[in-house]
Amino acid sequence: MSFAGQTVDILLINAHLLTMDAKLTQYPRGFIAIKGNEIVGLGPQAQAKQFSADKTLDLDGDLVLPGFINTHTHVSMTLFRSLGDDVNDRLHSYIFPLEKEFVSREMVYLGAELGNLEMLKGGVTTFADMYYFEDEVAKAVDQIGLRAVLGQTVIKYPQADAKNATEGIAYAESFIKKYLHHPRITPAFAPHAPYTNSTEDLQKIAKLALFYNVPVLTHLAESKKEQAEIAQRSDGLSPIAYLDKIGVLNNNLIGAHVILANENDITLLKTHHVGVAHNISANIKSAKGVAPIVEMLKQGVDVGLGTDGPMSGNTISLIDELNQVAKIHKLWNKDRSVMAAVDVIKMATIGGAKVLNLDDKVGSLEIGKLADIIVFDTKSPNMTPIYNPYSVLVYSAYATDVKHSIVDGQLLMENRKALTVDEHDVIKRANEFSEKVKASLISQGKSIL
Amino acid sequence: MSFAGQTVDILLINAHLLTMDAKLTQYPRGFIAIKGNEIVGLGPQAQAKQFSADKTLDLDGDLVLPGFINTHTHVSMTLFRSLGDDVNDRLHSYIFPLEKEFVSREMVYLGAELGNLEMLKGGVTTFADMYYFEDEVAKAVDQIGLRAVLGQTVIKYPQADAKNATEGIAYAESFIKKYLHHPRITPAFAPHAPYTNSTEDLQKIAKLALFYNVPVLTHLAESKKEQAEIAQRSDGLSPIAYLDKIGVLNNNLIGAHVILANENDITLLKTHHVGVAHNISANIKSAKGVAPIVEMLKQGVDVGLGTDGPMSGNTISLIDELNQVAKIHKLWNKDRSVMAAVDVIKMATIGGAKVLNLDDKVGSLEIGKLADIIVFDTKSPNMTPIYNPYSVLVYSAYATDVKHSIVDGQLLMENRKALTVDEHDVIKRANEFSEKVKASLISQGKSIL
Repeated sequence: MSFAGQTVDILLINAHLLTMDAKLTQYPRGFIAIKGNEIVGLGPQAQAKQFSADKTLDLDGDLVLPGFINTHTHVSMTLFRSLGDDVNDRLHSYIFPLEKEFVSREMVYLGAELGNLEMLKGGVTTFADMYYFEDEVAKAVDQIGLRAVLGQTVIKYPQADAKNATEGIAYAESFIKKYLHHPRITPAFAPHAPYTNSTEDLQKIAKLALFYNVPVLTHLAESKKEQAEIAQRSDGLSPIAYLDKIGVLNNNLIGAHVILANENDITLLKTHHVGVAHNISANIKSAKGVAPIVEMLKQGVDVGLGTDGPMSGNTISLIDELNQVAKIHKLWNKDRSVMAAVDVIKMATIGGAKVLNLDDKVGSLEIGKLADIIVFDTKSPNMTPIYNPYSVLVYSAYATDVKHSIVDGQLLMENRKALTVDEHDVIKRANEFSEKVKASLISQGKSIL
Repeated sequence: MSFAGQTVDILLINAHLLTMDAKLTQYPRGFIAIKGNEIVGLGPQAQAKQFSADKTLDLDGDLVLPGFINTHTHVSMTLFRSLGDDVNDRLHSYIFPLEKEFVSREMVYLGAELGNLEMLKGGVTTFADMYYFEDEVAKAVDQIGLRAVLGQTVIKYPQADAKNATEGIAYAESFIKKYLHHPRITPAFAPHAPYTNSTEDLQKIAKLALFYNVPVLTHLAESKKEQAEIAQRSDGLSPIAYLDKIGVLNNNLIGAHVILANENDITLLKTHHVGVAHNISANIKSAKGVAPIVEMLKQGVDVGLGTDGPMSGNTISLIDELNQVAKIHKLWNKDRSVMAAVDVIKMATIGGAKVLNLDDKVGSLEIGKLADIIVFDTKSPNMTPIYNPYSVLVYSAYATDVKHSIVDGQLLMENRKALTVDEHDVIKRANEFSEKVKASLISQGKSIL
């Protein structure tokens, strides 16, 4: 308690703290002291009097926990949300044509504003993103204040920001150099998937990622189509075994989805410290299946939760995933006791931090860690009563129960009001954009499904 | 338009109306006029000027639809929410001991207040309930203003309000006589399940229900235990075939869950016009399985959605079921195109009304129907943008996006403020009750899981 007696910037008092530290320490009446971007004190309420603060929030028993970490999304696709949800060939009938027509610097920035706003209001404090013009996402993150791992897409097909993978890698490298020392942004490579990149390019990216020490975000073991294409390329290997063979499985790699993983694949993920972003909502909506997360956790693989893009999972606030993760794995394993609420909250916080290699900085409330903190209002009917706080968060809390949000020591939302972005204005501009998309779909004779 | 030129009580203008009528008529800019408890006008906005009103709400494009119908819950169990969620033997380790110790008139009333508040704030305008001391639930419904089908439980084991099924039937009959002519309450029999009642009592209840013309609510084809017990009682029949054989399958019967239904069972449900309450959230959390709803809808069975009690599904606002219903059936059927958003909204509104035999009164917005209407605020980031309004409601709306709620022509919630119940006071008393439960669990040396 070396900071005792000190004036701090923000003091949260009378809080029910769920620290999510290694011992899952709880303080049913506790406090947290924040100075600069750091947690400098926490413990039982009685000890709070050692601190004075410029800003004190009396939380009246509300739940306080580390901010949620969304390990996989495509934030700018918020602008296409609610298109093609129930359509089997939506990738070809909606997503690809829409992206071809509408992806631009301006679209990526506006979608990122809307998505950052949505995540901020839903308790996400860190997210990992994969898209085009990722420097535009970075601008929105820089302005609004969340923490993010931002991956510039590399794919062998022509896109708005690169004609081929070589150009994509160059774009990514330039983006990475620019943001390598940003206090909240970790730039990254995002090869779209193993089957949409050549072996050589995947190896080149892995090498560059080691050189810059940045993450590699990729879709992995997501579909049968991918499985078949990789098997053909590699004499029958699974996507994960193929990546092992070409030497790109390592601690920098974060695989999203990882639905089709057998026992050997899971061992490879564990051995090479590959992180897994589990996206239950998108995976079941697309009827692709349920990733073997219970097995992965048993084997000690690092697993975090993700929402996927809003054309897949629809909302990008992580809390909407929690109850689905708990329930679907119970159903899939025919056992109500698997995937208990506390295990889900672990994945949503410290688990996600481990996946993104940020667990020395965030993911739990501990002295010396960065102050990424969310407060849940416990005064709504759905949050009443609270016997087990993890259960309430997983099974009955809404994104709208998040009352305050602090990232990197900055209060970004207070009493549900976003402080660093004009909510009304962003929504208005997003709706104007959607009118253009609607007009285009109608002019092409497409029905809006 | 016989009421044209008339002064009405409430006028909703500039609304995006989803009427859920047989043609799924939408008015992207429309109005509704309400006089007394009835819808007396609706259509495109240009026609609204024929009406003047005491109260006009300009909805600025917000979505308006018939209120959601929760076809199965145990509303008073809100007071036990978040206990035993991930425990395999929770029925015996939590629910039964808790009910033995705590079920009383006062508890049922308080739990019903909390649950009615939660449903009101989440867009439910009609619900079907099964519990003990159901007259206390009726008091809360009478006071707060929702519409409800309230079933007094009959079960062969001793309970707080009846020593055996005979007493339970007598209690139910007396309750039914008292509420038979209530404008918003339909009293009902609620035999707990086929296996927890004798054949004779099930037949007696069916006969009395026909006499009073009231519904019979029951848990049906929910578990393998039930299946085995009924098979033993009936020479190998399924629960549904057994109910057919003893002559109690008819239009008054509403079966909750109906997970274990084969082809023949589905035909029986259709032939006898039995209603089905589908509770996806509770069914997957309990790892019991997925009811064959896609098949039932194909065969023309009436299916509505339910939440089950809040120890099972946790929240009792129906909207929390919608995205799970859509996604789980896609997963289960390995087909993204099944259970499209519009089909889910149908089940949540007119489908539920058909199940409860209330479709001549509610479930769609039509002139002459009762005014049970909800308004969704479309100005939140998760509701932006709106290409397909059904998709937005199913995949990204929160219970807290419900802005106004009207039941039987009465405005019960305006701008998220409940008008007929003191939200703060109910939550305070519910928390006080939970402290007693916690103290008792701790004194018994039980951990709160």
